[in-house]
Amino acid sequence: MTMDIPALRKKYSTISRGINDDFINVHPIQRGGVLTPEAQKVLLEFGDGYSLCDQCLKGSLERIQKPPVGEFFEDFAKWVNMDHSFATGAARHSKEIAFKVLKKLHPERNIVILDANAHYSTFMALEENHLQPMEVPHNGKYAYKIILEKYEEKIDEVQEKTHELPLAVLLTHVDYQYGNYNDPEIVGKICQKKGVTFVLNGAYSIGILPPPSCKSIGVDFLAASGHKSMASSGPVGMIAFKEEYAAEVFAKSSITTDITERSWPNKYCHFLGCPPVYGAPLATLMASFPAVVERCLPANAADESKKINFLIDEIKKIEGFSVHGVLPKIHPLTKVSMPAFAKIAETHPRKGFFVRDEFKKRGIIGMAPGISKSMKINTYGLTWEQVKHIAWAFKDISSQNGLTVKD
Amino acid sequence: MTMDIPALRKKYSTISRGINDDFINVHPIQRGGVLTPEAQKVLLEFGDGYSLCDQCLKGSLERIQKPPVGEFFEDFAKWVNMDHSFATGAARHSKEIAFKVLKKLHPERNIVILDANAHYSTFMALEENHLQPMEVPHNGKYAYKIILEKYEEKIDEVQEKTHELPLAVLLTHVDYQYGNYNDPEIVGKICQKKGVTFVLNGAYSIGILPPPSCKSIGVDFLAASGHKSMASSGPVGMIAFKEEYAAEVFAKSSITTDITERSWPNKYCHFLGCPPVYGAPLATLMASFPAVVERCLPANAADESKKINFLIDEIKKIEGFSVHGVLPKIHPLTKVSMPAFAKIAETHPRKGFFVRDEFKKRGIIGMAPGISKSMKINTYGLTWEQVKHIAWAFKDISSQNGLTVKD
Repeated sequence: MTMDIPALRKKYSTISRGINDDFINVHPIQRGGVLTPEAQKVLLEFGDGYSLCDQCLKGSLERIQKPPVGEFFEDFAKWVNMDHSFATGAARHSKEIAFKVLKKLHPERNIVILDANAHYSTFMALEENHLQPMEVPHNGKYAYKIILEKYEEKIDEVQEKTHELPLAVLLTHVDYQYGNYNDPEIVGKICQKKGVTFVLNGAYSIGILPPPSCKSIGVDFLAASGHKSMASSGPVGMIAFKEEYAAEVFAKSSITTDITERSWPNKYCHFLGCPPVYGAPLATLMASFPAVVERCLPANAADESKKINFLIDEIKKIEGFSVHGVLPKIHPLTKVSMPAFAKIAETHPRKGFFVRDEFKKRGIIGMAPGISKSMKINTYGLTWEQVKHIAWAFKDISSQNGLTVKD
Repeated sequence: MTMDIPALRKKYSTISRGINDDFINVHPIQRGGVLTPEAQKVLLEFGDGYSLCDQCLKGSLERIQKPPVGEFFEDFAKWVNMDHSFATGAARHSKEIAFKVLKKLHPERNIVILDANAHYSTFMALEENHLQPMEVPHNGKYAYKIILEKYEEKIDEVQEKTHELPLAVLLTHVDYQYGNYNDPEIVGKICQKKGVTFVLNGAYSIGILPPPSCKSIGVDFLAASGHKSMASSGPVGMIAFKEEYAAEVFAKSSITTDITERSWPNKYCHFLGCPPVYGAPLATLMASFPAVVERCLPANAADESKKINFLIDEIKKIEGFSVHGVLPKIHPLTKVSMPAFAKIAETHPRKGFFVRDEFKKRGIIGMAPGISKSMKINTYGLTWEQVKHIAWAFKDISSQNGLTVKD
């Protein structure tokens, strides 16, 4: 097909995010993925296609020694206290692989018990493996706190109904909606008692909060996200797991072709050979890892909690504004309810977009377009000065639009 | 687990490729992935995690308008003459999705017919879908040319044996081993005659050679690779396909959860929601696209063929050196056989590594470490001056090691 190359150039060669460092980005899923200076440096160096494959000796990712990919997988596993870790395309991909492996081990089990705040990608990972979800409830408006103890009765319910154990239990460590933190130790104990595999989705937590000591608390599989929470260029996830699942996760190709008699006994089937991260994504994840480990030290994580709780206290001074989810916050992802903005939007010429406009005018971006009744924000990694500026912006926009703001 | 952060910093924060632009990289899978200047620019701008999601309005990738992701998918489809295209994690991921979709449409069919030079990832994509391969032979040493007409008898063979059609036919447009080009039109005609779905693996060709006019020649699915052949930061692939497969490729989530009654009717199951390319990979693919379209114009592609054929003529002047695969070359990926180097390696203190050392001394990198009997190289996108320098290096290393080099 003849293509109009000048028109294509105009459309694609100069694409731009249209934002720069002068803006404060509070996008709920982007704060944890902001690159460290180290990662920015390697991003350029490893930017080309398959850059990590320069020194590939044996055709498998973990055997690359320059840079030390295999050592990184060992260090990551050590950090979260697991036996193995490996790269994936994303946390959702890690979950898909965990469920695929478990389904192969227990083809008769079809149900996965998960929390009522689980991420949509968890359901896609189930759906792709022909599995059914069963939810563990939260406690409703407005804390939406998962009632962790109920995992036990849900397991019993599955056993009664199907005469089989559930294939797995999944807990979302920190959820995407309210940023609620769930203690995996409670669920781990239940799973150990009942003999059920425990998958922890750490997409929002690993790289932000102190990592759980997985094996000690009964976690069998951990899913983590580089671009979401570990200062990496997307896409890259991590899967970490116990030794007992290693043979199946690392299942190798068993095909021998009929004519050429080729076979690939070193290639990992579930990763289609090597996971699709053989360039900038894994390089940036590795470069950021030391800084990520440091930022997850309890004192540093606590400082991030302080910032979001300060902002929440300021937001609550605005007439009718509230915060959904469990308070005080542990994780900085936060859902702000602002019915008064929704009311203004009804008659505003820019409708719900006025909220975004007003924040942008004040140097703040990352709010979903069109929203006004509620919005999700994330202060992770912002300075105190920036957090105070956001607090001021909330209050300033409110008072300029006729809302009462307490002192 | 307590981690030694200074030790981690030493190990990971300063990782480096250890190469720079002073070297000529002839790595067989890396030439097509070298970023354009436009892509280098957007790489930095879209480097952070989920950068493409800044302006996500509806929770699906193709609806992002800034930058124009949906338009890009349309333009890509137009370029290869297909009805639809979408991003994936890699060409292997595109193949996995194609087979998954086909298996769902025809659960009774279990065999995929493919060429004897097919890439290992094609077999992984089969294996993950519980499918069996059947090879179409090549003509043996040293051309390894696929006997395309044999696809027809293989289809007949499957029908006789299984009383079913094969699930699909796959052709590797250009293979990874010899860089042989296969004419998809021949296979397309056979598939149309027999009523079999035709999957074309364009991982090495799309972005390097003029694109096939897929629909006109009977291609049903096309797999392409950004990091391999379209000047993109990895990982990003493309899948393109005919309208009749659209409903199944874009199958949406059908789960409604039992307690919260959540559902995600807009999310694409086979992509786990959105494909994992929501940052630098897709941004660089889009930014490079105009240049990629231009470099694939017949005259430009022909110039690249001239360069590799010039180099091959020079290499053949060396005693005992030859080139495997069909000559003259259309695609610049080339397998050089050099038995004399293997002989030298037997007694060389650096064994097979001496070849790599000698080339590196002359400013050339990208040879697999340890090889000496044969090696794969790729001259794509190098200047004539660089290609001539490589020719000189081959001859210089040879004559310095006592081999006869013809004038």
